[in-house]
Amino acid sequence: MIRKPALAVVGATGAVGAVMLQIVSQHEDVWGDVRLVASPRSAGRKLAVRGEETEVVALSEEALEGIDVALFLVPAEVSAQWAPIAAAKGAVVVDSSAAFRADAEVPLVVPEINPHALRVRPRGIVASPHDTTLAMIPAIGALHAEFGLDELVVSSYQAVSGAGRDAVAALRTQMSLVAGTELGTGPGDVRRAVGDELGPFAAPLALNVVPWSGTVEDGGWSSEELGLRAETRKILGLPSLRVSATFVRVPVITTHSLAVHARFESEVTVERAHDILATSPAVVLYDDPEAADFPTPADVVGTDPTWVGRVRRAMDDPCALDLFLCADNLRKGAALNSAQIAEAVAAELASPASPGNPVRGRSGSL
Amino acid sequence: MIRKPALAVVGATGAVGAVMLQIVSQHEDVWGDVRLVASPRSAGRKLAVRGEETEVVALSEEALEGIDVALFLVPAEVSAQWAPIAAAKGAVVVDSSAAFRADAEVPLVVPEINPHALRVRPRGIVASPHDTTLAMIPAIGALHAEFGLDELVVSSYQAVSGAGRDAVAALRTQMSLVAGTELGTGPGDVRRAVGDELGPFAAPLALNVVPWSGTVEDGGWSSEELGLRAETRKILGLPSLRVSATFVRVPVITTHSLAVHARFESEVTVERAHDILATSPAVVLYDDPEAADFPTPADVVGTDPTWVGRVRRAMDDPCALDLFLCADNLRKGAALNSAQIAEAVAAELASPASPGNPVRGRSGSL
Repeated sequence: MIRKPALAVVGATGAVGAVMLQIVSQHEDVWGDVRLVASPRSAGRKLAVRGEETEVVALSEEALEGIDVALFLVPAEVSAQWAPIAAAKGAVVVDSSAAFRADAEVPLVVPEINPHALRVRPRGIVASPHDTTLAMIPAIGALHAEFGLDELVVSSYQAVSGAGRDAVAALRTQMSLVAGTELGTGPGDVRRAVGDELGPFAAPLALNVVPWSGTVEDGGWSSEELGLRAETRKILGLPSLRVSATFVRVPVITTHSLAVHARFESEVTVERAHDILATSPAVVLYDDPEAADFPTPADVVGTDPTWVGRVRRAMDDPCALDLFLCADNLRKGAALNSAQIAEAVAAELASPASPGNPVRGRSGSL
Repeated sequence: MIRKPALAVVGATGAVGAVMLQIVSQHEDVWGDVRLVASPRSAGRKLAVRGEETEVVALSEEALEGIDVALFLVPAEVSAQWAPIAAAKGAVVVDSSAAFRADAEVPLVVPEINPHALRVRPRGIVASPHDTTLAMIPAIGALHAEFGLDELVVSSYQAVSGAGRDAVAALRTQMSLVAGTELGTGPGDVRRAVGDELGPFAAPLALNVVPWSGTVEDGGWSSEELGLRAETRKILGLPSLRVSATFVRVPVITTHSLAVHARFESEVTVERAHDILATSPAVVLYDDPEAADFPTPADVVGTDPTWVGRVRRAMDDPCALDLFLCADNLRKGAALNSAQIAEAVAAELASPASPGNPVRGRSGSL
């Protein structure tokens, strides 16, 4: 391929889309045309990308013509409908939604951890994991490579922006309603003050935490908890990995945090875990409690890596580590990982070996 | 004992003291004199208890004369100094601090779980567990009695009032500084806005979570994480119970939440766990995700029990349960449990069998 590949950003006007346009503008420019696509009601808006005001076009078959790589940053039902159309038109689709993550014919890729998976994509679609999985995988994948992962117990502290712009607006409104008051000390007083301003949540988030994210599934699990288990198994190639998770939303705008108890096949030490984490791509080790060095969402937001601290060997299990990590759910957790996948595809398309690559005209043959 | 026992509330002017005076005023009145004691700078203040304005006296040897039960709701260093003095003067001390929790000669009591431990108190002192342990024990103790506890992995979502009144004031100030802004989306923007208003915390709490509470101990553990392990082992009589914990402070005023992964010796079912939790004292089962019924701090604050929801059997371990629970850290977590212990002691003093009780004149003989 002599010309640079053409990129479509589908969902350019959303919260993740906004971060994606920043990333495309800031990273090394590997793209030819960059087409911004969104729902018809956003068509005609102009957004800045690579220093140029660019008009948003409505999602349609025509909008997907001549595209080499299509980044889908839209709800799962939109991806389910339109990603196969883009793939049929010859684009490699990088989808950030849940639509294809469980599809055995769609690789689920974190470039630092399983880049090899990218090359086998029979449907012409590559999926990016859920933001919560992505917060964890760079660190846990690196530790797995050394120690052999056996079991995970995960508790989340999830930011509201993972639930969309309405969720952020709801928390902002709630913060204004409770700030300057003495609320938060009597049963239901925050709920009464917040009234109908719940946004997409079942309970207030200001001065509260809510132990739910996702849809209700069998056994009382949430779809997101089950997703962490399925995605971690798929990415790490561990189909019978034991995973338990409890997902909790907290009043943070952006950046997910996770407390992780990870049991391995071999004995661990904090020193070796520190060495691994300090030298792994997409991970920053920040771990000195004496100096109050541990990651918090307010310090991590807007940065690319997963920040890891509170690394301890379990007191009663020499094969287990306890740790706490934070990652910006709109960057590595969504836009950045998808951008990295797209850039890897672009590099493959530009490579002299690309005649042998699986990108075009081979749907179903791999 | 014909007269009702005399009660001293030491630390009456603190946050837990305020809740204690409510409880003493609302519960069945088992007390004769109620003496309010605090630091010399609070002496002379008047506080309402049992409908009467009562003058606060300064902590001194004299203030502890003639007291049958002394409730200590003060920092550990104050308890360490004064509780033995009160005991030497004949009072049974109920201490809510960490000073004596690890002392083998001091029982650590949750009346619903290990009431028998109360009767053996060679030092004349009974300790109440830390608020985080107390949030968990009524539910986990009940499940242990049925299934036999083998291992706990706990993540906390701790309210700021557990760190005292300065902590609450700091979060209130921080909330006012960030409400109505667009903060929380750039690295350090919340930290800059909060400035010096951190209170006792190492990082902002508004629009943030902070993975630390307690002092730094060996291996990177916090004193509170180690305390959960030691206290749970002592209360349940399981000296080699495996416990891992990661403690995280969240922007909630009052009510601690915990995500708990509990492994048992025998196979569990959600149905049986529900039956146990629904019929256990000091526990409310609130668990129907379809109806958005799960406990949150804003709904639980101001109530006495531990509220439990999100009860699930681990998908990859038939002997493990995952659950989420909330309890008011100033009520069951501090004042209420201490009050319950004190009332049990009062009942013992009033009982016809009390000549055989170990309360008075027997220090060191048990």
